[in-house]
Amino acid sequence: MGEAAKNKVGGLAGVVAGKSAICTVGTGHGLNYRGYDIYDLAKYATFEEVAYLLLNGELPNKQELESFKQEIIKARELPQNLKEALKLLPKDSHPMDVMRTGCSVLGCLEQEHINVQQLQFPDQKKIGIRLLGVFPSILLFWYHWHNSGKEMSTKSNQDSIAGYFLEKLHDKAPKDLWIQAIHVSLILYAEHEFNASTFASRVVTATLSDVYSAITAAIGALRGPLHGGANEAAMDLLSEFKTPQEAKQGILDKLARKAKIMGFGHRVYVKADPRNVVIKEWSKKLAQDVGDTKELYPISEVIEEVMWNEKKLFPNLDFYSASAYHFMGIPTPFFTPIFIMSRVSGWLAHIYEQRANNKLIRPSSEYIGPENRAYVPINER
Amino acid sequence: MGEAAKNKVGGLAGVVAGKSAICTVGTGHGLNYRGYDIYDLAKYATFEEVAYLLLNGELPNKQELESFKQEIIKARELPQNLKEALKLLPKDSHPMDVMRTGCSVLGCLEQEHINVQQLQFPDQKKIGIRLLGVFPSILLFWYHWHNSGKEMSTKSNQDSIAGYFLEKLHDKAPKDLWIQAIHVSLILYAEHEFNASTFASRVVTATLSDVYSAITAAIGALRGPLHGGANEAAMDLLSEFKTPQEAKQGILDKLARKAKIMGFGHRVYVKADPRNVVIKEWSKKLAQDVGDTKELYPISEVIEEVMWNEKKLFPNLDFYSASAYHFMGIPTPFFTPIFIMSRVSGWLAHIYEQRANNKLIRPSSEYIGPENRAYVPINER
Repeated sequence: MGEAAKNKVGGLAGVVAGKSAICTVGTGHGLNYRGYDIYDLAKYATFEEVAYLLLNGELPNKQELESFKQEIIKARELPQNLKEALKLLPKDSHPMDVMRTGCSVLGCLEQEHINVQQLQFPDQKKIGIRLLGVFPSILLFWYHWHNSGKEMSTKSNQDSIAGYFLEKLHDKAPKDLWIQAIHVSLILYAEHEFNASTFASRVVTATLSDVYSAITAAIGALRGPLHGGANEAAMDLLSEFKTPQEAKQGILDKLARKAKIMGFGHRVYVKADPRNVVIKEWSKKLAQDVGDTKELYPISEVIEEVMWNEKKLFPNLDFYSASAYHFMGIPTPFFTPIFIMSRVSGWLAHIYEQRANNKLIRPSSEYIGPENRAYVPINER
Repeated sequence: MGEAAKNKVGGLAGVVAGKSAICTVGTGHGLNYRGYDIYDLAKYATFEEVAYLLLNGELPNKQELESFKQEIIKARELPQNLKEALKLLPKDSHPMDVMRTGCSVLGCLEQEHINVQQLQFPDQKKIGIRLLGVFPSILLFWYHWHNSGKEMSTKSNQDSIAGYFLEKLHDKAPKDLWIQAIHVSLILYAEHEFNASTFASRVVTATLSDVYSAITAAIGALRGPLHGGANEAAMDLLSEFKTPQEAKQGILDKLARKAKIMGFGHRVYVKADPRNVVIKEWSKKLAQDVGDTKELYPISEVIEEVMWNEKKLFPNLDFYSASAYHFMGIPTPFFTPIFIMSRVSGWLAHIYEQRANNKLIRPSSEYIGPENRAYVPINER
């Protein structure tokens, strides 16, 4: 299919918007980050290793990883004015709006300095690490303040983002199995080429705006149910059913009345999302670990089966992420914020890449509006 | 040039990313909003009329305009938690970051409710008016708090956004000539097809995210000096020179050392920005009104001449906007925030249009990264 023909499909589907060395999603290469197979990374690496890889292009050695982790740990701390701002955001705020606002406030408190004439961005790496460290703190400080009235401390013995998040969420030392599950989930979510949020961050970056503006935009895009918001929508769906039998009939009924089912299909994949097998296995493992009293795993499997039989639609990463997170006691409205904690690594890699070879991203539109018409003064209308 | 060939230019230049009935920038039609010539609108209309036109597709009659203006006036008010949040943003914050944060906070306090299943957006019109009304309040409340320690009141006798902005900025009733100049400027800045900030707002909207996320993203994009930030950069340039003679030599020197000169050229125009003649005339009028002791207008003219002679580059809307704003005593860091107060009308029109016929905006990239490589455990690196 030629580029013009592909573009007719709409939404820039299949249109090449730029070059990138960060990730392939294509069937030829499989899903790779910087040339490394996602299955190897999910099996053997930690999230911090993968984040380092995305930001720097190469895997770290032991010492590089250790110092990267130490920097992220330091970056957990919240400035007082950010804490005060988070207290002002109501308890019933959408947590994605809290994350978006927290990032934007930080952009005021710790401004990025850019040398536009020389195209130099001396702060960008430091800000990247800052955001990797601070996002779990933003979410959970806000959450605990409105639930217990207490200021959450950002001190922790956990040395990973996964461990820190779980410890602060549940206020106790997390199980190793759960920490491992979060590492895998963060790795799977870390990067996915020119998806909508990443593309939004590149459009913003290309005007030579700051990192915070680009990440704030990306959070806003990720929030939508046609993007990151799908994992929360998938959980809402699972919660509707008490048994696999009920789920089967329920989904058939929904399909009959053409309801939207979130967590299935994907713009770039035709037959399967390669990340699904990994998260599905983890969902099963966690179901066994916690005792799946609500039968969420078998319900998920039945829904997967019906969706394939009826619509030839496959579960994407969001679908089994929902039950996996639920088994670890993570509140549903935090699912998409976890996606931020991971994807920020991919966003940052794209921001750095865009800046290294920048060109304003500015497409055109096909005009379908009214022909030229004469202005009529308001008194004559 | 075929679509694929055009795309080779990069940055989606000339690539049609969707259909739109809002604006033409093409040479065939001239610059039109909803079919109305920008010159007629700038000459005869008020900004509120133009905002109504953009949001609703048709010019308002007298009664429609009156009620639209009343709604915008009501929307000036700031919720207490937004005021408190603005106080937390330091005095040396970038005002664009303040605007971005203010919008994001409001998205927490006055959430948009979306019916994803039915694709219904019952709050979107109300939120649009809210943003038209509240942006001048956000900027100037923050500004006055940090300069006088006083909470600015949003009460005013001015019935237009232009008048309200000037009154609150200078804390006195503004001259009619200045109000008129701001109307014209807001009209010229209101809409410009798939520019970077508008396109960012559509990318965010297409995931079915909320209006605040889309506008927050757009503000972040507008902030960059390759987009809205250019009007501030143009003012910084003008301020470097004391006389037209000095400016002439100064620009020649800059060009010789390949420095970037902001406020010239445009992605979609080849020979001239059609908006330039209008704002240039207003800059001249305001220079005469206030007495141009710093010779900013003649300095601007000389720079225009040198840039054309040396580089065949023409001033875009941002260039003479700089001196025009300066003559009205507007601080340079507020130039791009004024652009927001105007362009929010175009952004909203595009958000509504995107939602009415939505498709996820998700292009692809050409992979130029490393070939598949084997993962090596960290101890062996």
